[in-house]
Amino acid sequence: MSKESDKQEFLKVFQILVEEFLDLVREYKFPTESVEWIKKNLYHNVSGGKLNRGLSVVDTLKIVKNNKVSEEELFKARVLGWCIEWLQAFFLVADDIMDQSITRRGKPCWYRMDGVGNIAINDAFILESAVYCFLKKHFRNEPYYIDLIELFHETTFQTELGQLLDLTTAPEDHVDLSKFNLEKHRFIVIFKTAFYSFYLPVALALRMSGIKEESAYKQAKDILIPLGEYFQIQDDYLDCYGDPDVIGKIGTDIEDNKCSWLINQALDKASPEQRKLLDENYGKKNPENVAIVKKIFRDLEIEALFKKYEDDSYSRINKLISQLDDKSVLKREIFTTFMDKIYKRTK
Amino acid sequence: MSKESDKQEFLKVFQILVEEFLDLVREYKFPTESVEWIKKNLYHNVSGGKLNRGLSVVDTLKIVKNNKVSEEELFKARVLGWCIEWLQAFFLVADDIMDQSITRRGKPCWYRMDGVGNIAINDAFILESAVYCFLKKHFRNEPYYIDLIELFHETTFQTELGQLLDLTTAPEDHVDLSKFNLEKHRFIVIFKTAFYSFYLPVALALRMSGIKEESAYKQAKDILIPLGEYFQIQDDYLDCYGDPDVIGKIGTDIEDNKCSWLINQALDKASPEQRKLLDENYGKKNPENVAIVKKIFRDLEIEALFKKYEDDSYSRINKLISQLDDKSVLKREIFTTFMDKIYKRTK
Repeated sequence: MSKESDKQEFLKVFQILVEEFLDLVREYKFPTESVEWIKKNLYHNVSGGKLNRGLSVVDTLKIVKNNKVSEEELFKARVLGWCIEWLQAFFLVADDIMDQSITRRGKPCWYRMDGVGNIAINDAFILESAVYCFLKKHFRNEPYYIDLIELFHETTFQTELGQLLDLTTAPEDHVDLSKFNLEKHRFIVIFKTAFYSFYLPVALALRMSGIKEESAYKQAKDILIPLGEYFQIQDDYLDCYGDPDVIGKIGTDIEDNKCSWLINQALDKASPEQRKLLDENYGKKNPENVAIVKKIFRDLEIEALFKKYEDDSYSRINKLISQLDDKSVLKREIFTTFMDKIYKRTK
Repeated sequence: MSKESDKQEFLKVFQILVEEFLDLVREYKFPTESVEWIKKNLYHNVSGGKLNRGLSVVDTLKIVKNNKVSEEELFKARVLGWCIEWLQAFFLVADDIMDQSITRRGKPCWYRMDGVGNIAINDAFILESAVYCFLKKHFRNEPYYIDLIELFHETTFQTELGQLLDLTTAPEDHVDLSKFNLEKHRFIVIFKTAFYSFYLPVALALRMSGIKEESAYKQAKDILIPLGEYFQIQDDYLDCYGDPDVIGKIGTDIEDNKCSWLINQALDKASPEQRKLLDENYGKKNPENVAIVKKIFRDLEIEALFKKYEDDSYSRINKLISQLDDKSVLKREIFTTFMDKIYKRTK
């Protein structure tokens, strides 16, 4: 099946899940206005993403099962994929309020929509609850039902811990670069992004395949977490050095006091004079302040440092993949598929 | 055991759970500052409540098991009780942001604490995640583990739906009494309060007792939901007519445009002139507006209407209790204990 038709099939399942979820609300005899509100919430916040995370569940299942996957299994993998997309929507709706973001996926953030405001907090909760409604409806009778639930619980908790460290390290309103360091950056990236974006889709597909050995999950994690870390560091790089026309937005990490890989590398290498300039200019909205920070990045050759990091990561992760046992249930292709999608990406 | 020593034993388990939860964060090797932040979150938001919901799990288990409860079972019931308190903390931290409340349990609301702000949203998520960490640690090997998880999921979802209807029916900033009606009030009360405060503690204790018959849960629900409805209507009554020295706060439901039982009864009975005055004066902070609303309540004899409702509810619920089979696992005492605590309460 082509990538495009894969995506079309995946999108069809969204419609089914929306109706299933709204039916639950209707069964409780809630007023139509509540059903309509939730429908708007779902269409605004769950759809419209790149769907990489959700599609990864389907891709991984196909690889693990040598493409011998029934229509029923495919449907179930798509449901799990959408559960990740729903979980992500829960995080993003809340993150946008906490970051006071303006737009998301080319639309105004949900909390900024007319009449929504802080009701968006409860709407985010409802998105999270939907995940467990879908798991119950479609997996209740599977022996791995409890494993799926525990995976979602654990990943949710890890993401929340990553978000906590991010929010307390780089508060929007108070710049203090002495709180930043590369070790913290690593924690934020791994917990806030890598677990739910890279480990979760593969772990779900492995559960669906009936794999029980904890060692397989450990091995998958040991490759996917570094992959996720590399992915997020690319994101930090592209925010500053990517082509806005290609990535679809103008990066504002410097303005927003973000604890990104670039500033952490700069802090690591800065002379006392450069450090002083970074302290004075980072996290300010004024283009002049941003220009001074970018000048220091240039002087410290941060871009070259990223290129070196990218090459090193590529070798390091490929080595981990090559070390997998030929007879392992973890086929190398699971991981090379991810790597091919992200190596030297420009968006 | 006396009520007071019951409470002391219950409180001891809080300390144990706090340490267990912080240990999970420490195991992830998170920086001390994150552990300290979460500790503050727990002490500020989970402790300090009346603990009625949590203690109900222990009380119910004792009744169901004829007081033949081992120390281990008692401990487990207390853990489940704290899971409800944790879940409630998750709701309250978020509700306070959505309602822009000032104080909670005699302290400033968490989001108003120095340096917290909207980080409180993520802190609420972490409180919810803790529930599933505790269930996993203490109940993973029990045959009813999945039932506990599903109970918490379902109750969480129901509470969120109730909160959605409340928030969209009575937005803080826009008074429109035509959106109010008694049917909606009933939904809000049942979903936002009755499920998690009345049904959940009993259902958890029944699960712990090994009761599997769905009919028992249905019967319990059929009594506990009306009980919870009655409880919340008392709350609405006390907000306006209770003694502030006794209930520990000055009610502001009229000022806050709350969809309370009182205003819904008044709307039901108001003449066109009275309705006009309600439209003009409800949901306004000015004491003169509040006085006009209270005058209409007086003219419509809403207080007497409540007394009648209270008597009717008491008879109706007692009748439901008396109709329970003598041989049912659902002993009448489970419900009479609740009723005794709340009938004609003044706080």
